[in-house]
Amino acid sequence: MSQETIAFIGTGVMGRSMATHLLNAGYSVNVFNRTKAKTDDLVAAGATWHHSPGAAAADANIIITIVGFPKDVEDVYLGDGGILENAKSGSLIIDMTTSSPALAKKIATRAAEKGIGALDAPVSGGDLGAKEARLSIMVGGEESDFARALPAFEIMGKNIQLQGKAGAGQYTKMCNQIAIASGMLGITEAMAYAKKSGLDPFHVLKSIETGAAGSWSLSNLSPRALKGDFAPGFYVKHFIKDMRIAIESADDMGLELPGLKLAKTLYAKLAAQGGEDEGTQALLKLYLS
Amino acid sequence: MSQETIAFIGTGVMGRSMATHLLNAGYSVNVFNRTKAKTDDLVAAGATWHHSPGAAAADANIIITIVGFPKDVEDVYLGDGGILENAKSGSLIIDMTTSSPALAKKIATRAAEKGIGALDAPVSGGDLGAKEARLSIMVGGEESDFARALPAFEIMGKNIQLQGKAGAGQYTKMCNQIAIASGMLGITEAMAYAKKSGLDPFHVLKSIETGAAGSWSLSNLSPRALKGDFAPGFYVKHFIKDMRIAIESADDMGLELPGLKLAKTLYAKLAAQGGEDEGTQALLKLYLS
Repeated sequence: MSQETIAFIGTGVMGRSMATHLLNAGYSVNVFNRTKAKTDDLVAAGATWHHSPGAAAADANIIITIVGFPKDVEDVYLGDGGILENAKSGSLIIDMTTSSPALAKKIATRAAEKGIGALDAPVSGGDLGAKEARLSIMVGGEESDFARALPAFEIMGKNIQLQGKAGAGQYTKMCNQIAIASGMLGITEAMAYAKKSGLDPFHVLKSIETGAAGSWSLSNLSPRALKGDFAPGFYVKHFIKDMRIAIESADDMGLELPGLKLAKTLYAKLAAQGGEDEGTQALLKLYLS
Repeated sequence: MSQETIAFIGTGVMGRSMATHLLNAGYSVNVFNRTKAKTDDLVAAGATWHHSPGAAAADANIIITIVGFPKDVEDVYLGDGGILENAKSGSLIIDMTTSSPALAKKIATRAAEKGIGALDAPVSGGDLGAKEARLSIMVGGEESDFARALPAFEIMGKNIQLQGKAGAGQYTKMCNQIAIASGMLGITEAMAYAKKSGLDPFHVLKSIETGAAGSWSLSNLSPRALKGDFAPGFYVKHFIKDMRIAIESADDMGLELPGLKLAKTLYAKLAAQGGEDEGTQALLKLYLS
């Protein structure tokens, strides 16, 4: 049994799997979620419910959050009754939400003022990666805090990389989303072209997926889109949020990313047509409508 | 020793390797190239030089071309003294140039009028794929012609797919280039963002290349670009040609491909700045200048 008590805030699809792995590994786990029912399974498995993020954090050594939007991250850390108001000096906060690099730096600065360590540690790998404990975890912060968090990270993920100081985890996750954004345009336009030109798009995949056009998205998402399966592996609405964060932070650096901006415009159009709760492969509908 | 005599027209970097494999496999090979010196090695190895595409084609059973631009394809097939004027009835023409689907259909129609079979069979895999005889060959045409060409294809490539009637090989190759085009925007913008945000971009690759952002381009071209190695695996000027063909054919189908158009605009800008003889990974320079 580990000596660390972990507060786990945000037990949605991702967080629930991640917190379950920590419980199973012997950690004491305090949980909070805005919708209490989403903590029921965890409480039944031995976690302790708390009525607020601050209360969950107050007697924990490590505080992990994975919530929705940057606004939610700001609220749970910096709001009244939030984590930084309640966490003990010497504790460690880890935000695993995909959120803004600037906010990650701000939270780390505020935490340091109270003697609290801070890591930003967004993940990729989706619900399946969370369930199978093989997430990629991209971390920003101090080496000593990273070393302290590593045993918990290793219970939740496989490819765990300290990428730099506070914010570096979020910057790295943005690189991931930026590569995916235009990549989705590429595979979607290729599929639309295949269909319009009268080819069998599944047969086209056999010719192109093993060479220079090959990608995870082409092999995994194109077949779903072509079958008309638009169920979310990754939600359009969350992807739009991530692209907005990436564009804002690129603007802050004076970096122009026209591919990313185009992808965001097209996904926003898809969302406006009712696709926001579908998976990112639903972009094909926009091209074939 | 095969009974087929193959005319091989266009012995540039790709064609020279491909024709060499055919010679080594026992085919009689007639060669023509605009720059005669580029056939010297082949002639030394047993190929027979001819002074024009038509002359090379006249006593061959199978006529293979891999030249530069659609205009060159049109010239060698339909021009005065060209292949269709000289090839025997019962012979088979195979254009392996990446060229226009509309032109492939036109050539196939003209060939049929003279009792000549026709395949369009562009390739992917680059100079290395040609050298190692592991090209992907994407074929359009009749099944009987495909069956007749297959032994020769198998000497030059590995992933050989009949994709449909005349033009289908070119359409499939365009799908390949379309997926690559926006994909290059994605990996390039991700690298630019990584550098601008102060991350170590090589370390970022460790976090992102194994997941949903993973692609052949990210793993193979990003490291070269980040090292400042812009030597051509695939020339910017050829990529622009392919994107132009893809856009024209998409326009013909009434299909709007904004990602592809953006990629072409950016690559045209790179070419205008002197990058046309560099590799496609040189796009990074445009973002960091």
